[in-house]
Amino acid sequence: MATLGLVTPQEMCFGEPLPLQSGLRLADYTLRYETYGTLNADRSNAVLVCHALNASHHVAGLDAEGNKGWWDNLVGPGKPLDTDRFFVIGVNNPGSCFGSTGPMHINPATGRAWGADFPVQTVEDWVDAQARLVQRLGITQLAAVLGGSLGGMQALAWTLRYPERLRHCIAVATAPNLSAQNIAFNEVARRAIVSDPDFHGGHFYDHGVVPRRGLRVARMIGHITYLAGDAMDTRFGRELKAAALGYSTQGVEFQIESYLRHQGDKFSEYFDANTYLLITRALDYFDPALAHGGDLARAFAQARGNRFLLVSFSTDWRFSPARSREIVKALVDNHITVSYAEIDAPHGHDAFLLSDPRYHAVMRSYFERVAAEPVAKGAA
Amino acid sequence: MATLGLVTPQEMCFGEPLPLQSGLRLADYTLRYETYGTLNADRSNAVLVCHALNASHHVAGLDAEGNKGWWDNLVGPGKPLDTDRFFVIGVNNPGSCFGSTGPMHINPATGRAWGADFPVQTVEDWVDAQARLVQRLGITQLAAVLGGSLGGMQALAWTLRYPERLRHCIAVATAPNLSAQNIAFNEVARRAIVSDPDFHGGHFYDHGVVPRRGLRVARMIGHITYLAGDAMDTRFGRELKAAALGYSTQGVEFQIESYLRHQGDKFSEYFDANTYLLITRALDYFDPALAHGGDLARAFAQARGNRFLLVSFSTDWRFSPARSREIVKALVDNHITVSYAEIDAPHGHDAFLLSDPRYHAVMRSYFERVAAEPVAKGAA
Repeated sequence: MATLGLVTPQEMCFGEPLPLQSGLRLADYTLRYETYGTLNADRSNAVLVCHALNASHHVAGLDAEGNKGWWDNLVGPGKPLDTDRFFVIGVNNPGSCFGSTGPMHINPATGRAWGADFPVQTVEDWVDAQARLVQRLGITQLAAVLGGSLGGMQALAWTLRYPERLRHCIAVATAPNLSAQNIAFNEVARRAIVSDPDFHGGHFYDHGVVPRRGLRVARMIGHITYLAGDAMDTRFGRELKAAALGYSTQGVEFQIESYLRHQGDKFSEYFDANTYLLITRALDYFDPALAHGGDLARAFAQARGNRFLLVSFSTDWRFSPARSREIVKALVDNHITVSYAEIDAPHGHDAFLLSDPRYHAVMRSYFERVAAEPVAKGAA
Repeated sequence: MATLGLVTPQEMCFGEPLPLQSGLRLADYTLRYETYGTLNADRSNAVLVCHALNASHHVAGLDAEGNKGWWDNLVGPGKPLDTDRFFVIGVNNPGSCFGSTGPMHINPATGRAWGADFPVQTVEDWVDAQARLVQRLGITQLAAVLGGSLGGMQALAWTLRYPERLRHCIAVATAPNLSAQNIAFNEVARRAIVSDPDFHGGHFYDHGVVPRRGLRVARMIGHITYLAGDAMDTRFGRELKAAALGYSTQGVEFQIESYLRHQGDKFSEYFDANTYLLITRALDYFDPALAHGGDLARAFAQARGNRFLLVSFSTDWRFSPARSREIVKALVDNHITVSYAEIDAPHGHDAFLLSDPRYHAVMRSYFERVAAEPVAKGAA
């Protein structure tokens, strides 16, 4: 399969303040984004891809440093989301640390980095920011909004806030809200970051340090929840790093320890601590049923004009299939057309980023249907 | 039911060094222990209770500060492990922080606190230390060794090291070894402690500080794994602390956050950081099948003279019923008499400390059988 090759990110500045769910406003912000493929004449083939916790606008192709996009196995010429047919948009959300306005940028009110004072973001805020970008790109209606995990929550929120601006919602390995256990894991990760003395109340930029210890622990916790327990046993089991036990509490004895430490170290080199807090909070807050007395079906009454694909993975214990089925039920209760695939994959939550053949076959087939369907005149 | 009332801990000093699995020796150590009930004339009614991660010798009754023992609901007059019938021994393991020799005590070789230099302990080392104590108490054969979680591993190890010194092994909510995911959670907790600047390489006693931040995070992680996800949803769900969202990344929004922070704070006030490292390592290392080419059945060939009760809890995802069933299978393969109860309890791993009626009925019935059985002359 051909790859997209070098992709150059673009930026769009927004002067008009973005009203946020918290009541605050985000003024003078910039969104970094990438596009792949060509917008067709009637502007009906655009697909927006929403990112999850540690990803970005760089969805596919190669960036200037030669890094592949995070969903490059799915998005490209001839791939399930085929850039020969679709015009694909990847956008970095506000508050992230990959180019869009975030906590490491200057707060115009104080002249120093926002740090922990960056306004709290919600999934709905991000969708609002994305909707403005899409509008400025001249697209009245997206063929689809696609996302996995936290990105799937954004795809769902699109159907609740701007149902007329998209035809299809494709939400992979996601949930209608976080469980208490999900929130608990997020909270421990946040405490690890916040209690790192190098965090300096979120203003570590001023001190020329980074709360690496906290970020490492946060990433290690996260990583455990992305992997299925059985997959960890298959891959690492109780395999030792050295030939014999070292009888050490601080050294590395088991391969799984080495792997987790490596993941933590890598992450702490590139990810922003305040962004981690903001993004996990956006996850915690997402709960579209809340405004409808906890009734998810009532929430999705807004989305009667949309069609959905939900995908879950059997071994995902972070966002289990049962959580996707809650969404399917809410859609069915509204007589909304929904396809649902529960993929028997061993990898846990991470499966949504991998190229399981059955999973990719479902995605390919769905996007082929989207590409083939007639678009109502004036709809796009 | 009557309670035991005030219980006074005792101490026993051991001059002869204890050889450890690591090849090191623990010299001049003290064990703190408690006993409940009365040793009968033929010394055949003694039951040793082994403790898990954060527990101690104080199993039942009230200590001088009025604190109930950690298994007081199970152990006492008229309780499932009836102290009117049995002489029960609780012992604090070396390396712990409740009175037995541990990392906060003086290393005679250096004249300062052991700290992180305290010799690494294994489950087998603890069992060896316990066996010496039991011998010094004049008991040739225990009626039973009982433990839950890490305590269950000790009960199992007794049957492999001293099969002739006990009749029954009662192992609750335990596993034949840790899975990769279990080790991973331990490792994250250890990294949180070790990377706390107040840890000072394990010699924080010399600095008059305690690595509280690390201990808090470690305890929060542990606590999540002790509770079933569904039980967390039932108890906390997405309930907010205040009437409305505060839109804060560092404040407490959800009840589950408040609960976890409280657990972390409490723990960091009383638990020793080096003990946490030592005890999680003992968990990691336990793997009786290892010396038998991974064949657990071959390991338990030593235990053909013992009888077993295994208990697991349906919602325990830390040490799932499947792990207990591995042990049951290894025993059955050896034609060893084993009773197994899988209790359908909602509480997760913590269930072993709670007084679920079905669980306690199984324990009561088993101990009644132990009390009623004839003891071979000269065996005790």
